[in-house]
Amino acid sequence: MDVRLEPVAVRGFRFAGVAAGLRKEPERKDLGAIVANSSVAAAGVFTTSRVKAAPVLVAQERVRRGRLQAVVANSGSANCFTGKAGVKLARDSCAALAAAVGCAEALIAPCSTGVIGRLYDLEKYRAGIVEVANSLRPDGFEDFARAIMTTDTHPKMASASVRVGGAEVTIAGCAKGAGMIEPKMATMLSFIVTDAAAPPAQLRAVLKRVLPESFNAITVDGDMSTNDTLLLLASGAAGNRTLAGRELHTFEAAVGGVAETLARELVRDGEGATKLVTVEVRGAGRTAEAEKIARAIANSPLVKTAFFGCDPNFGRIAMALGKSGVAFDLERLEVSLAGIKIASRGSLHADALAAAASRMKEREFDLTVDLKQGKARARIMTCDLSFEYVKINAEYTT
Amino acid sequence: MDVRLEPVAVRGFRFAGVAAGLRKEPERKDLGAIVANSSVAAAGVFTTSRVKAAPVLVAQERVRRGRLQAVVANSGSANCFTGKAGVKLARDSCAALAAAVGCAEALIAPCSTGVIGRLYDLEKYRAGIVEVANSLRPDGFEDFARAIMTTDTHPKMASASVRVGGAEVTIAGCAKGAGMIEPKMATMLSFIVTDAAAPPAQLRAVLKRVLPESFNAITVDGDMSTNDTLLLLASGAAGNRTLAGRELHTFEAAVGGVAETLARELVRDGEGATKLVTVEVRGAGRTAEAEKIARAIANSPLVKTAFFGCDPNFGRIAMALGKSGVAFDLERLEVSLAGIKIASRGSLHADALAAAASRMKEREFDLTVDLKQGKARARIMTCDLSFEYVKINAEYTT
Repeated sequence: MDVRLEPVAVRGFRFAGVAAGLRKEPERKDLGAIVANSSVAAAGVFTTSRVKAAPVLVAQERVRRGRLQAVVANSGSANCFTGKAGVKLARDSCAALAAAVGCAEALIAPCSTGVIGRLYDLEKYRAGIVEVANSLRPDGFEDFARAIMTTDTHPKMASASVRVGGAEVTIAGCAKGAGMIEPKMATMLSFIVTDAAAPPAQLRAVLKRVLPESFNAITVDGDMSTNDTLLLLASGAAGNRTLAGRELHTFEAAVGGVAETLARELVRDGEGATKLVTVEVRGAGRTAEAEKIARAIANSPLVKTAFFGCDPNFGRIAMALGKSGVAFDLERLEVSLAGIKIASRGSLHADALAAAASRMKEREFDLTVDLKQGKARARIMTCDLSFEYVKINAEYTT
Repeated sequence: MDVRLEPVAVRGFRFAGVAAGLRKEPERKDLGAIVANSSVAAAGVFTTSRVKAAPVLVAQERVRRGRLQAVVANSGSANCFTGKAGVKLARDSCAALAAAVGCAEALIAPCSTGVIGRLYDLEKYRAGIVEVANSLRPDGFEDFARAIMTTDTHPKMASASVRVGGAEVTIAGCAKGAGMIEPKMATMLSFIVTDAAAPPAQLRAVLKRVLPESFNAITVDGDMSTNDTLLLLASGAAGNRTLAGRELHTFEAAVGGVAETLARELVRDGEGATKLVTVEVRGAGRTAEAEKIARAIANSPLVKTAFFGCDPNFGRIAMALGKSGVAFDLERLEVSLAGIKIASRGSLHADALAAAASRMKEREFDLTVDLKQGKARARIMTCDLSFEYVKINAEYTT
């Protein structure tokens, strides 16, 4: 199964993205929709933040029923910390799309991303929705993906096809988010659509199984967003038989492949990122411990600046291991950086550091920590911390 | 009681700091000692990291007995992840000072700071110790403070005097550390000496009480060091009576004042820091919850870059509150930045942001979050995240 970095048409869905003037830059696309031909099976996961944006509250409630016909999403305002007015705005936004495309408002999930604490202009939004409705087309996924970008430098899309249940099934997804990224349930915003026939409960189970290896395995800055939303919609247009056993597994692997690709693309395009580093912790006693260590390393500003400086700084990796609070035996520890073993059996391989530093110049490499005390493992994808991260975030004003 | 930012002589102690050639820059001081005229009462707290440096292991064991006569400290190498050879090196280092000044080796606590994973040169160290022994003098505290600096831009010292137990008691301390700073027991290295007469158990109790408001209330980058050590030595030369009740409280407040001043100076001189921000969380149900929120805000790279950009970015503060996992009522929340209320009763005060942005240009300001649900509070001192932080840490090579 190949995952492609392009969008493809998915039977049963149309997409659009337009510039509605919700952002400071009026020429940028900022409003988009995904509309299914009729109500479809849906599942979603959302931020676990204690501060949930208004559209998250509304979407969460609607997705729970297992059916959706459309998703409407905007950038420029997160509609978060906006109280009851924010919830009303999210509902009114859905109502605008419902009227324009002729579907029930309750079958529309709203999503927003951008500045926190402010409402967006409903009149501009409504005018934009008319344009969205007129632009919907089967090959409009990239327009939609562009409309939800904030500090992203390019839209992130991925697609895959598999033959299951007697039919060719296509899966396409997009995602946005470059900062405020350490999802605990999903990323900022990601939408995956498929023409597979699958009931909502099955979609939920699939999402649950693919999350740990995709959106829940990434970090840009350790900061979880208030608007994280991942939706999976299945139109059933592929006409496959009910999926079970090995075929369900194949479908799940394809959804997982798309999700993991999108998640990796988010980190690769992380704010100011010049490197994508996969931190893998092996040989732990328990998965939770492996993950704790992997996150301590992946979120340490000292480790991340060392990545940026191509510095095989073992000391900072040891520091992060130490502060994770997980018990381990220093004497058994084995650490490899960009494929070069830099520490084992209690000592640093000083003569291997030059080779590691040289390999760290690549745009992508692995950091592997083997505790050699058990069989559990965890993997977190992270990026470096560069001047550009500081620049972007010191200048991106409220 | 006034805390001064200068060192003073403390009866019963002599200090020295020399350039022994342990660092890359041979002209910089890198080896120092504090030597008491005889064995004195001592207490210490150390890193809670799972990766403890060799000198921490040795010092911890020796301080436990409650008596010390000297401290020997070096920069240039942390003597961490150095196995049994590191522990032997730390002991041999103490033996060198013991021979030079004529005291028992077991009464000397070793401390190291610098690069992790390498031993330092014992021959250079021994030669330096001879010079240290010849340079010891009552007013040598600043030389000592300079010898333990790494990325610090200046030595941090503080002193205070109080009249207790029928005597004038003096307390002087120094600290180092600009990065890898979020102590969970103490900072990188800090030494406080006093001429007060106080038994080890009392010193331990004093340290335990002053820590939450001083070294445990700061963060530069959320990264805990492997070498954190805070030692308190009391010579008894002041000849005060046993301290109890209000007098003990006065002494404790003076030690606390010195510790808090040193801790604040560490953050002010944090790597690349241009601003010192005191994050105060009030009105929480429990202290642990207030601290969790304060740390989530104080360690968020998005909040810290907003400080650097003088951006009153409420959205990022709300994000940090949300990701802390602590339950609170958004509608009751009140947030003030640099003395200006920017959010309350569920809404952002958009017209107050310009004034807050202007006040954020100061080198020091407060961020106050009131949850209005209880009486617990916590305070964490942090700094901003600047280009300079990235520069320092991308270029500081192993």
